[in-house]
Amino acid sequence: VDDWRRLEDLTLSEFESVASKRVQERVWAYIQGGSGEERTLRANREAFLRRTVRPRALVDVSELDLRTPFLGHTTAAPFFVSPMAYQAEVHPDGEVGVARAARDHGILASYSTLSSNSLEDIATVSRSTPRWFQLYLQPDPLVGERLVQRAEAAEYSAVVLTVDTPVLGVRDRQTIGGFAMDSSVPIGNGGEVLPPARAPAQQGNVYRLRDEASQTWGVIDRLRSHTKLPIVVKGILSAEDARQALAHGAKGILVSNHGGRQLDGAPATLDVLPEVVTAVGKDAEVYVDGGARRGTDILIALALGARGVGIGRPVLWALAVGGADGVRRYFELLKVELATVMALAGVRSVAEIDRDVLRDPG
Amino acid sequence: VDDWRRLEDLTLSEFESVASKRVQERVWAYIQGGSGEERTLRANREAFLRRTVRPRALVDVSELDLRTPFLGHTTAAPFFVSPMAYQAEVHPDGEVGVARAARDHGILASYSTLSSNSLEDIATVSRSTPRWFQLYLQPDPLVGERLVQRAEAAEYSAVVLTVDTPVLGVRDRQTIGGFAMDSSVPIGNGGEVLPPARAPAQQGNVYRLRDEASQTWGVIDRLRSHTKLPIVVKGILSAEDARQALAHGAKGILVSNHGGRQLDGAPATLDVLPEVVTAVGKDAEVYVDGGARRGTDILIALALGARGVGIGRPVLWALAVGGADGVRRYFELLKVELATVMALAGVRSVAEIDRDVLRDPG
Amino acid sequence: VDDWRRLEDLTLSEFESVASKRVQERVWAYIQGGSGEERTLRANREAFLRRTVRPRALVDVSELDLRTPFLGHTTAAPFFVSPMAYQAEVHPDGEVGVARAARDHGILASYSTLSSNSLEDIATVSRSTPRWFQLYLQPDPLVGERLVQRAEAAEYSAVVLTVDTPVLGVRDRQTIGGFAMDSSVPIGNGGEVLPPARAPAQQGNVYRLRDEASQTWGVIDRLRSHTKLPIVVKGILSAEDARQALAHGAKGILVSNHGGRQLDGAPATLDVLPEVVTAVGKDAEVYVDGGARRGTDILIALALGARGVGIGRPVLWALAVGGADGVRRYFELLKVELATVMALAGVRSVAEIDRDVLRDPG
Amino acid sequence: VDDWRRLEDLTLSEFESVASKRVQERVWAYIQGGSGEERTLRANREAFLRRTVRPRALVDVSELDLRTPFLGHTTAAPFFVSPMAYQAEVHPDGEVGVARAARDHGILASYSTLSSNSLEDIATVSRSTPRWFQLYLQPDPLVGERLVQRAEAAEYSAVVLTVDTPVLGVRDRQTIGGFAMDSSVPIGNGGEVLPPARAPAQQGNVYRLRDEASQTWGVIDRLRSHTKLPIVVKGILSAEDARQALAHGAKGILVSNHGGRQLDGAPATLDVLPEVVTAVGKDAEVYVDGGARRGTDILIALALGARGVGIGRPVLWALAVGGADGVRRYFELLKVELATVMALAGVRSVAEIDRDVLRDPG
Repeated sequence: VDDWRRLEDLTLSEFESVASKRVQERVWAYIQGGSGEERTLRANREAFLRRTVRPRALVDVSELDLRTPFLGHTTAAPFFVSPMAYQAEVHPDGEVGVARAARDHGILASYSTLSSNSLEDIATVSRSTPRWFQLYLQPDPLVGERLVQRAEAAEYSAVVLTVDTPVLGVRDRQTIGGFAMDSSVPIGNGGEVLPPARAPAQQGNVYRLRDEASQTWGVIDRLRSHTKLPIVVKGILSAEDARQALAHGAKGILVSNHGGRQLDGAPATLDVLPEVVTAVGKDAEVYVDGGARRGTDILIALALGARGVGIGRPVLWALAVGGADGVRRYFELLKVELATVMALAGVRSVAEIDRDVLRDPG
Repeated sequence: VDDWRRLEDLTLSEFESVASKRVQERVWAYIQGGSGEERTLRANREAFLRRTVRPRALVDVSELDLRTPFLGHTTAAPFFVSPMAYQAEVHPDGEVGVARAARDHGILASYSTLSSNSLEDIATVSRSTPRWFQLYLQPDPLVGERLVQRAEAAEYSAVVLTVDTPVLGVRDRQTIGGFAMDSSVPIGNGGEVLPPARAPAQQGNVYRLRDEASQTWGVIDRLRSHTKLPIVVKGILSAEDARQALAHGAKGILVSNHGGRQLDGAPATLDVLPEVVTAVGKDAEVYVDGGARRGTDILIALALGARGVGIGRPVLWALAVGGADGVRRYFELLKVELATVMALAGVRSVAEIDRDVLRDPG
Repeated sequence: VDDWRRLEDLTLSEFESVASKRVQERVWAYIQGGSGEERTLRANREAFLRRTVRPRALVDVSELDLRTPFLGHTTAAPFFVSPMAYQAEVHPDGEVGVARAARDHGILASYSTLSSNSLEDIATVSRSTPRWFQLYLQPDPLVGERLVQRAEAAEYSAVVLTVDTPVLGVRDRQTIGGFAMDSSVPIGNGGEVLPPARAPAQQGNVYRLRDEASQTWGVIDRLRSHTKLPIVVKGILSAEDARQALAHGAKGILVSNHGGRQLDGAPATLDVLPEVVTAVGKDAEVYVDGGARRGTDILIALALGARGVGIGRPVLWALAVGGADGVRRYFELLKVELATVMALAGVRSVAEIDRDVLRDPG
Repeated sequence: VDDWRRLEDLTLSEFESVASKRVQERVWAYIQGGSGEERTLRANREAFLRRTVRPRALVDVSELDLRTPFLGHTTAAPFFVSPMAYQAEVHPDGEVGVARAARDHGILASYSTLSSNSLEDIATVSRSTPRWFQLYLQPDPLVGERLVQRAEAAEYSAVVLTVDTPVLGVRDRQTIGGFAMDSSVPIGNGGEVLPPARAPAQQGNVYRLRDEASQTWGVIDRLRSHTKLPIVVKGILSAEDARQALAHGAKGILVSNHGGRQLDGAPATLDVLPEVVTAVGKDAEVYVDGGARRGTDILIALALGARGVGIGRPVLWALAVGGADGVRRYFELLKVELATVMALAGVRSVAEIDRDVLRDPG
């Protein structure tokens, strides 16, 4: 009871610090860390702080409509949960907890190949709320195919193919904290599923990666031959790669640098978003994740052309703070804040958000 | 006596830190906080620090004239008190204390709809010193009309219509500090007066705001039909909205982002000022508030075209430090500093301050 | 003896912190403080840090010549001591201590109207080393004339007329520290000499300054009629004012913002230097002070066209650290560092330093 | 054993802090310090952090080839050890320890004139791994010639001629820490070898440097007449000096500011690299050192045209942490990280790294 009252009072400013006290240090290092010196992790956040928004006064904003269609499914808001692994390490509620909260708030969520709960268990609690299945390429392509077939059977509405992880980034904070992305951390989707390779291995004069690192754009075509689900390509950071993804039939492009966990030195996603939006035009939906924390951030990303904004670490903070209840509280606060900033910016629906909302579209 | 001597010695650099020790924590959170991550709160201040001023030597500056007309009423200086609510929470002297200090120094002050003292009590102590009444749109328009009629009867010289608050910004610092802008804080202008709505409320698939959020620019025309007082529109942050305000008969435009308390991500007011000044031309007076602290700041804002500069938090700091006496000391110091920087910049009167005073007009 | 050995080991990086422990807090506040929020004080320093220098390799730099002519008098280096008041407050050696060190190192020094020692006592120890007398305009012009006549009699080689001080800047740090620039601090040049006015005084509807604040550029002509000494005008921060000074017969222009102690918000002197150099051409010598600390700073300022660089606070730090011996050690270190950076930049004499030394002349 | 396990777990983020606890304070001051205010030291690092890299997805990166030819000798990676003096002060393994690690990893290393171990002892352990001998010009040219002849006899593959040190920079941190670059620190190459001159000495009206400071570009020709080894010129920071070096027969240009230890205020090496690369074209190999710490840094420098990247302080940190074993661990981690960032950037070999890898080539 006491805890629940506390959750009711929590503001968006407090989830991170409260969460830091509720998880093990090794898990906190996993959640918070980026790769290398974490320059991309910082850049993601700073890119939002560089933009300014233009308030407009005396617009009729008595009714605010946050509903947003993602690949034909309407959800309650233009943000969604980015795929993140191992959520039972953060809180026993795990992905099933996130799914319950997402279902109750009508929020789109995506679930990792490396989820602690099985994709079927997640689907069961999600009911009719749309959900996406994230796929890491597997050394054995059959393992990947089976995952996609299960996702289709469990009525996921899209496959999010991650293309930025032929090998894991060098994540020192995580290593120092003692969180290993290996077989010691249980994966809900079955023992045959492998996390991305940890590092290249020296072999004579060269370094070698696992077989999936040899995949090129044709992998999207092959994936499409195994599923009717639309493909969202995650990890695009240039107009060139966006065009490649479209040419191979992607229906969605997720501009992402993996939360600053892969190539340290990669640009902030928000800085890349405009060139990808221009390259894609009306041929696919464009999403972005990395660094979004508040209602203003979502408004900015939408003004720069994103259909939706993926939320990563903050959902884990909320999960750490209070399991499914924590995530519910977070969704509630973020929706209310987004409705508030929309009202203050003089826009009544997500469809009305365009570049005019920004003072310096950068 | 001891305290009074201390006040005599105080410099402009010290009010904030002294004030922080003299008010309750919840009140301090209310005074200091902004919305969201407080990016706009910081931006307001930083915009002043980015400008540089050009000193001019060997100008005859033996006499310095700070007098400034506001809508036809001459005051002693080009700064004024921005409207701020609930001043009795800061010090028992409340708005009446500020009014006494403003009267003794000939400074224009504006008073909030949500003042702790009644607008009539404020008027009584103000005597012939000009004062403005700030109006928040009320869900029941009749309540607003009555407030304006009372202000006219009490010989206020203008109505400041706030247009940036269809709903309150999300003010986490204030929430965490435990200061609620609700019925628990007494309002001097009567029980029928309501603070702005705290947040949008979910209603089925949309979020709804109170009735006043549906108001558009015609509200200025309606307000003008109820009063002979000139209308100053507060909360303008774009040339477009400034033109709208003029088209509906505003006589003054107050460039303001509500001290960084409404849309977090809104631009610094000083950065917006030039485009508003250009749009308005000679059709109205333009004022600015947000982030001004020192004589140099006032000089900069005037050089960028403002007729006057609204002072917010520093007046509350001064009130916290010493009630009406604290505010008197603050006005005295700010006037002397402004006279000093004018002398050093080689300008003898506020009318002489133009863009040549700036090195990089930005 | 112990102390003397310590001084021998001191590096340029250490004078400031050592000095901070050797003077009274009120004196430290006086030395270190600027006006207002000290934005100009910070800007002076940052302007040097923004420039980069181009090293050149394999130039014959076996002999390095630092000698520099100032108004026809050759000194040992292109830096000089800027005028600073009240040096006996810093160390009993006072200006006479600085003069002994300057004499032993062949360094040009300028001495304030408000020196603790009399200008004659300073002259006596200086012997043939050139020295400048700084003049604050006095309310009674006869007082100023007599000072200049005494300086001429005592064989000073120039008069430095300060033009940026019709009133003192608002120096909060100094006020808080308790250092009053008033009659409580003895002035070596006699009781008739007045420091600049502390603040404008309200008189009815306006603020008034002392009589000298009414002086305009003609004051230079009048000064020239009373002395054969060349006039250096100190406190110029624009091409316009530099041209005025030249038109009235100035032989030197000292680009200065009074060490960030007068108009807070004034530009960094280094940023203004190029426009003044361009405006002045060959008609006068141009000097700069404010923020120079190291050999590299002097190289940069000379590359931007300064004939010489005034050193302020560091000389007081050195005086605080060890009296005349401290200043000697400082001069020695600064000369050696300047010779070193000249060698590394591939220039052999101050005459060889030009814009090519800079990578980005800004 | 315990220590060894620890070394196995160490990440690139930890070497610096671990090292700081394993060496004497005076040695730490020597390793870490720069000249003057260390502005160039900081600039070197910041220049890398300003660049961003473009990840490319779905490139076949299953095999990553880091091999890099330096002046015709193929090594295992595009980074090398920059010359650094006195390595036995850091760890008893000294340069011989670094040489063992470099040999085991196929990494090019360069060794200072001022090495603690003799160049012959270094050569013995290096075996067939290429190594470079760094030469400081000596006051007696015969001493330098003999060093070069010994290096040629010991099968070094190039001479690195340092041209930025006619005198040592003013290194306050080192002085304060008590590390003297004088005869108290043993030099492995024999008692006749001298470190660079510490400071210019006053002689009458000028400052003088030792004889070698009079050398100009012809010194390269003379050096070439004494050895068949190719000459790499170290300390170039402008296109002009690069052209001079080429004109006198240099085969390699090392863009270096001596790790921020010589001219404080010199530009970041990474900022200068592009103009040198353009000036040099295909006439020589261009290398860069200063500030590179991580795999991303190496990728950036190569993308800007460097053939190889010199690593300085991090090698000393690794040596301090664990002697030869520490350096082995460091090389292993840096190679794996470089292979990882290459994979994530979609490049398979160092030859494939070009400007397209950068988002903003600056």
